[in-house]
Amino acid sequence: MPNPTASMLVIGDEILSGRTRDANMHYLAGRLTEAGIDLREVRVVSDDAPAIVAAVKALAAAHDHVFTSGGIGPTHDDITADCIARAFDDHIDIRADARDLLAAHYAASGREFNAARQRMARIPDRATLIDNPVSVAPGFTLENVHVMAGVPSVFKAMVESVLPGLTGGAPLLSQSVRIDRGEGDIAGPLAKLAEDHDNLSFGSYPFIENGAYGANIVIRGTDAAQIDAAVHALETLFAETP
Amino acid sequence: MPNPTASMLVIGDEILSGRTRDANMHYLAGRLTEAGIDLREVRVVSDDAPAIVAAVKALAAAHDHVFTSGGIGPTHDDITADCIARAFDDHIDIRADARDLLAAHYAASGREFNAARQRMARIPDRATLIDNPVSVAPGFTLENVHVMAGVPSVFKAMVESVLPGLTGGAPLLSQSVRIDRGEGDIAGPLAKLAEDHDNLSFGSYPFIENGAYGANIVIRGTDAAQIDAAVHALETLFAETP
Repeated sequence: MPNPTASMLVIGDEILSGRTRDANMHYLAGRLTEAGIDLREVRVVSDDAPAIVAAVKALAAAHDHVFTSGGIGPTHDDITADCIARAFDDHIDIRADARDLLAAHYAASGREFNAARQRMARIPDRATLIDNPVSVAPGFTLENVHVMAGVPSVFKAMVESVLPGLTGGAPLLSQSVRIDRGEGDIAGPLAKLAEDHDNLSFGSYPFIENGAYGANIVIRGTDAAQIDAAVHALETLFAETP
Repeated sequence: MPNPTASMLVIGDEILSGRTRDANMHYLAGRLTEAGIDLREVRVVSDDAPAIVAAVKALAAAHDHVFTSGGIGPTHDDITADCIARAFDDHIDIRADARDLLAAHYAASGREFNAARQRMARIPDRATLIDNPVSVAPGFTLENVHVMAGVPSVFKAMVESVLPGLTGGAPLLSQSVRIDRGEGDIAGPLAKLAEDHDNLSFGSYPFIENGAYGANIVIRGTDAAQIDAAVHALETLFAETP
């Protein structure tokens, strides 16, 4: 059975303006690979309701799971929850379960549970809450979309809240072999090797280091022994053709 | 006149598997902001021809410019050039101008200009070449799509080759104000301030530092004096409500 598929939607002007470098994509990608869920696509859109709604609809229809990051805080530019509700034609308002969590948290910390903070309790009717052990304000899952915060520490905590409930496939394993030659020298034999191992994938990721060309060849698959054999074949191949 | 719009397509399994953290998105975002071109969307797809073709078509139809990164090297997994040709129904083969550039380069460096390296001269008929001062193998522009390498040093060099030929708009200016309070405390007055300055955009980017909440408020627009005034108003607002 093929692994479940996933996509990610990063919501935030700050990434598109170059002000902030996204950190959540890299974290999610690594965790999904370990869980045997294939991340097929990532989109980054701005804090713009039509763009968010259109992207959520397209990704939810195309993949088993969608993970979103960003736009669920208390400020005026936090519009993700309302956009998700709109994408799935669900009703959204301050919901008692989320409000109770937040009210208890602010009562305990002596801070005012004001109108802005109550916005963080806006949850679509049909959604289930995602636990936030870092800062309490919950994410939520609606249909196949998991809606999470953009602050990296909170995003990570929410991913760890969601993942145990998902059915993964065989973890995608990989090994990397560094070859200190230009890709042009290795491309021919490498293509032949990839053809001979058609249930593994061979990626070639070139680099330039101190003016010299090289490439990391990454062999991926779900069978550790097959990958070991391919790594051995690769190393032998380029040891023999200096 | 509104600024021209752009999107980016990052092509590469290595980003989606979590092996590599993308660097090119952040660089392009910053340079486009400086050039007055609004980056509206980024997509990351795997080395999969149907996914690349579909994304290129969608992005090219939606924005004034599309910038792609990755998949134009000599190895079997480098399929971007062929996918771009397919997206625009153009013919593609080894093209004399690109071949001559590469042949001269490899002759000068004493390396073989083999079949794999000749693949890097596959350029669609209607494309114009993008200069690559780092490693010679050119990128290309076909219609409104600028096709560039994934290796960060080469990507950067190609961006600098392309940008002077594009018509930008007013550079998007921004100033950032750090406020050491939770977003929930500042959200109300901030929303009011944003309403009062409706030709500027106010983004609130929360953080947690040593267990304390804060937010960077970023004010963006094209008029430096207006931004200065808004920064002053913001600082006054939160100085007065301790």
